[in-house]
Formats: sequence, structure tokens, C-alpha cells
Amino acid sequence: MKREPFINNRLFCPGPTPVPDRVKHAALDTSLYHRSDDFYALFLDCCNKLKPIFGSDTLPLILAASGTGAMEAAMVNLTAAGDEVVVLNAGKFGERWEKLAKAYGCNVEVVRSPAGEAPGSDEAVAALKKLKSPRAIFMQANETSTGVRLPYEDIAQTVRSAFPHCLIVVDAISSLCAHPMKMEKMGIDCVVAGSQKGFGMAPGLAFIALSSRAWKSISKRERFYFDLERERKGQEKGRSAWTSPISLVQNLSEALLLIHEAGIDAVLAQHARHGAAARAAVHAMGLKLFPKGHYSDALTTVAVPQGLDGQALQNHLKSRYGAVFAGGQDELKGKILRFAHLGFVSRFDLLDGIAALEFSLKDLGWRFETGSGVGAAMRSL
Amino acid sequence: MKREPFINNRLFCPGPTPVPDRVKHAALDTSLYHRSDDFYALFLDCCNKLKPIFGSDTLPLILAASGTGAMEAAMVNLTAAGDEVVVLNAGKFGERWEKLAKAYGCNVEVVRSPAGEAPGSDEAVAALKKLKSPRAIFMQANETSTGVRLPYEDIAQTVRSAFPHCLIVVDAISSLCAHPMKMEKMGIDCVVAGSQKGFGMAPGLAFIALSSRAWKSISKRERFYFDLERERKGQEKGRSAWTSPISLVQNLSEALLLIHEAGIDAVLAQHARHGAAARAAVHAMGLKLFPKGHYSDALTTVAVPQGLDGQALQNHLKSRYGAVFAGGQDELKGKILRFAHLGFVSRFDLLDGIAALEFSLKDLGWRFETGSGVGAAMRSL
Repeated sequence: MKREPFINNRLFCPGPTPVPDRVKHAALDTSLYHRSDDFYALFLDCCNKLKPIFGSDTLPLILAASGTGAMEAAMVNLTAAGDEVVVLNAGKFGERWEKLAKAYGCNVEVVRSPAGEAPGSDEAVAALKKLKSPRAIFMQANETSTGVRLPYEDIAQTVRSAFPHCLIVVDAISSLCAHPMKMEKMGIDCVVAGSQKGFGMAPGLAFIALSSRAWKSISKRERFYFDLERERKGQEKGRSAWTSPISLVQNLSEALLLIHEAGIDAVLAQHARHGAAARAAVHAMGLKLFPKGHYSDALTTVAVPQGLDGQALQNHLKSRYGAVFAGGQDELKGKILRFAHLGFVSRFDLLDGIAALEFSLKDLGWRFETGSGVGAAMRSL
Repeated sequence: MKREPFINNRLFCPGPTPVPDRVKHAALDTSLYHRSDDFYALFLDCCNKLKPIFGSDTLPLILAASGTGAMEAAMVNLTAAGDEVVVLNAGKFGERWEKLAKAYGCNVEVVRSPAGEAPGSDEAVAALKKLKSPRAIFMQANETSTGVRLPYEDIAQTVRSAFPHCLIVVDAISSLCAHPMKMEKMGIDCVVAGSQKGFGMAPGLAFIALSSRAWKSISKRERFYFDLERERKGQEKGRSAWTSPISLVQNLSEALLLIHEAGIDAVLAQHARHGAAARAAVHAMGLKLFPKGHYSDALTTVAVPQGLDGQALQNHLKSRYGAVFAGGQDELKGKILRFAHLGFVSRFDLLDGIAALEFSLKDLGWRFETGSGVGAAMRSL
């Protein structure tokens, strides 16, 4: 079906997220040399502006990699082969921790949650108790593949008091800027993040922050590209060990400026409002949420009902309305639709996404009152 | 000293190199999702367009990393701990191969060349003969820290015939597009490159190509982020294992289009002309080249003469004329000045760089006939 005039593609997938003009234009000055005082100042300013977003009392580091690179950096700097670790696997990204830990020779105890459910602190502690001397526990803050927000603060506090020496590592790639992170206060030892989620820019940068405790406990292991001690020594002066992706750091600098102008608390509150409004819209359209509670405020996951073809719905949203939603991955393919409201998303962007979903559902024959989703969201806002 | 009106900063450092407008603007469409057929097609097209630049008969892969990431990928996929390897160390980047090989537990035989000199095939073979069963030899095509172009083709052919099973690995990060690379024909097993050199775009992407022989000889070793077999399986369909830096791939796509429009042979010939012209200019200004032969066509390295302060010259070029040249690193600090003519550099850009150098030399009291460098370069062109 031919698309109406003036409809451009827009991203409603859980990363990359919409990029503000100011952020994308920041990379158009291509006269910056990464080994210059100008760049060192820009880089260090970014690290400093990341600090309150991580809630760390140490400097977060910037890596030239996608988020998985920061996950690998956490694994190879904080564990050694043979270390006992627990992985909370609540989906595709939990599985990534599991694969990483196994690839690097850890002795892994896995807590596997059914898709759409979140593990709790009891399960985390029970798994740790099975080990003689647990070195670390790995989890997500937000499991992007299912739209579940893990109770990471509660898990961290419970684990910290039961296992004072266990390092607590949280992948907050799709969570930072959407859900509160105060790693120092929450007792979290390592948080990893990526540029293309809450930071409203392209992928290609990964971020990692370690607690003072974690810095004192770096493991012995072969590593080079992801050697965090080397990075820390340089980045404290704005100098990355390896060539930094200059254009992406320029994007980041502008994005961080926008976040701090708005205020982190205001950004977090907006994500909470948008999450609630999106969920209200889903119910009003007669659809069900996929997660059993523990709803993410970064993305809303709809269970595709019987009688609707999930893949056809996703394709229709894109081809007819330019709305790029995400489907399910692996065994969830066709069964869920993921609608992200992460990063630089205004209430109008949110309503546009809901409206695109309503039009598509109507086109595909789903019976509900057109406008009910948008109306419910507006009342919720 | 206050800068004259209308002088903008311009890069004459060996990476990042100047970025054409078409290349930078290609990243302004931020509606592309990396898990979509549109992106898979764009990505695969980039890999295919890299192939003739590497001269490989297999598909080059794109990694979300800076060039050092591709060096690490070569090391961890082609060697195992305890393997015997030779490293040709002709400067800071040769040293990086050495550090990488040692970090990953190889038994390393190093051929160290004095700064400004290149190792030859005799030295490579002599080093390999010291080992019982050499697994691989690592070298640079172009040693960026000194401006020396290694005789990599000759070394590769000699090593290939003397040690048929030894893998030959070449870091061509600052060489590709400036010096010919036909890895299959030259008998080279692995070539690594980076986006911010001959490709006229920002850093953040690394490239790696393996010969069919190398693909059949992947080592057993712990790896995850830089697992090339996993990448190959996906990238043959345009799907990177980890989230791809979308904006940088858009830049790359446009840059590769420009390179193929001009023709690779024309691009190589231009680098050769510019190298010769830059060297003629240096001599005409009464200065000396730092390398003892084996001149790079990617950058020209000037030996800072007695009576001139190298650091002051570099600072003056930048502050007064907006011309960002590179100095020496580590023990070469203040002793050399590096003038790059790599990537999307026209003859006018080249002349501008030479003119900026002339004006700066004159300001700092170096005695020569102003205009002699530019004139010599123009006659050479």
C-alpha cells in the first residue's frame, strides 16, 4: 500500500532512539583532532556529565564499542577464569551475560526467569548460596527483549548485605535516563551503558563505571583493548587509550548538555509518566501487556493477541506509517511488539507512536474504538 | 597572536583526515534501525565495496571499535597462548603489536628497527628462523609514528615462500587507500584498517579481512566481542553481531561511493603524486625528511632542524593558521613534524598545508625563500 505524503520514518524501537537536531549537528565540525587539548576537555567534560547519571563517585569511562563491548570490559576486568559467578537471565540480554561468563571460563550459576518475568532478590541470594565463594553477580536493569524492569535496587541491597564481598554488576544499557541509577548509594559495583538508548544519539560508544571497591578488586587476566585501568589513567585527563570516535563524542557532549539542561530528575519523571501513559493506551485498545508486572518505563511490550499477526503488524507500522517498532527476538518472534519511549521522546512523539499503532490495528481488522489509546494516554499524562 | 579573519581549523594530522560534506551529511538521517533490511543492505554493500580496497577474495568485516580493536581481533582469532610469533616493530604501532602479542601470552620474537627505518625481508626471515614453529608475523604497512612505509609486499612474498604455514598479518590502518593492497595476490593473511584514515570519515569503525587460509586456521582461545567467526556468519547477510554504529556506517557508505566513483587506482596514484610533491616541498624549504628512505605517501615526516623548536612550530601552525599538524610521540616529541596527505585530500589542500608550513617557518625565523615549497610541489604535481 502506498504511503501517504509527508510521512517520514521514525524510530519507536528500543535503540537507537530519536536524535535531536542539536545532537546530530554537533558532529558536523570535523576539524577536531583527538590528540588535542580541545578534545581532551570535551571528552573529560562528557565523563564528568555522565557521573550524576550513573550516580557513581568515580569517573565513568567511555569506550569505542557498542554496549556489548562494555559488558565484555566488565567481565574481563572483574573476573578471572574459574571464578564463581551468578547470572540473572531474564531474556536475551541476560543470556548475553551468561555467554560472556562462560566464554571467559567462569563457573556460572544461572537464574533463568520465564520470558516476561523478573527474578527477585530471594532467587539471587539462593543462587549465590550454592557457590563457595561467589565473585560477582551479573544482571540487567531493564531486559530489553521483554520489556521487564528488574528490581535491581532491591537485589543489590539484599546481595550486598548477605554477600559483602560479591561484586554487583548491572547492565543498564536500556535503562539509564529512564530508571533511577545511583550506583554508589545502591551498592552497585559496576554499571554499563550505551550511547544509542537514553542518550539520544547513534550507537558506537559504550560507558562503564566502577565503584571504588571494584577498582580495588580488578582481576588478573589477559586483556588489552578493554583494559580499564589503562583507560582510567588516561581518561582522568580526557585521553582515551585508543582513538576515540570523535563525531560520536561530539554528539554525546550535546546530548549530555540537553539532559542536564532539562535536569536528570525531570528526565526520569518524564519516562515514568510516558511508561504509565503507554500502558494505559495498550489497555484502552483492548490489548494486553506482555510482562507480568515489573513494567519498564523505557519500552512497553504488547502481547500480540490471537487473531493478529505480529510480524504483519510490525511491517504495516513501518511501511504505511513510517513507525519503526520492534518485534520479538528468537522464540518471541511474532508474539510481542515492543514500543519504546526511551531517550529524547516528547509527549507528542509518544502520542504519535500510539496513533500509528491504532491506525495499524484498525487497518489489520482489530476491533476497538479508534482514538481510545491516544485518549487514555492523554488522560494519563 | 590573533588569528586573521576567515581561517578555520583544518586537519593535516595522520588521522582523522578531512571529511567531505557528502560524507558527514550522510549521517543526518537518523531514522535508520540497525535491525532492518534497509540497514542490512547498506552494511553488506559497504563490506562489498571494501573488498577491492583490501584486495581480498573474502568479505572484509566491520567492527564497532577503533583500529586497535581490529588489531586485537587479529591477535585473539589467529593466535593461541604460547604460540611463537614475530613482530616487526618499527615504531609506536609496531610496539602495539608487540604489547598485544605479549598481553595474550604469545612467545614473541621482536625485530626492532631504529626510528625512521624500515625492516626488510631478510630480518623478518632471520627472526622467523629463530622459532621452532612460527605461527604468525605481525607488521605495519605504514608506521604512522615515523612516516615509514614498510616493504610489506616484499616481506610477505619472502616469508610466504620460506614459511608456507606462517600467517602474515598487516596493520594497514594508515596505509589503505594510500598504498596498494592486494592481500590475496601478495599472500597476506590478515589486513586491519580504520575508518578515520584513508576513508575520510570519523574514527569508530575498524575493518578486518582474513584470507581463506586464515579463516581455516582460526585459533582456540577465549573471545567474545571480537569473535570473528560469529561476525562473519552475520555480516555475510549484513548483520553485525553487536549493534553497529549506524551513523558511522552511513558515513562509510558515502565515502566508499566517492572512492569508487574516483576509482581506486586514481586514488592510489594521487597519494603517490602528493607524497612526491610534499617531499619536494620539504627539500625546497631547506628541511630534511626524517625517514631514511621508504617514504610513506600517506604522510611526510620532517626532521625538525637544530635552531627550530618542533613543539612551538606545531603550536604556531595551529594557533595562527588553523593547520593541525602532528608532532612526534614519546621519544620523538619535538623532534619531528608529521604532515599527512591521506584520504580525501585535493592538490589544493596539499598546497594549503605546505603554505601554512612556509608561513609558520618564516614567522619562527627559519631562513628560506618564501614560496619555494609551494612552487616545488606545484612543479612536482
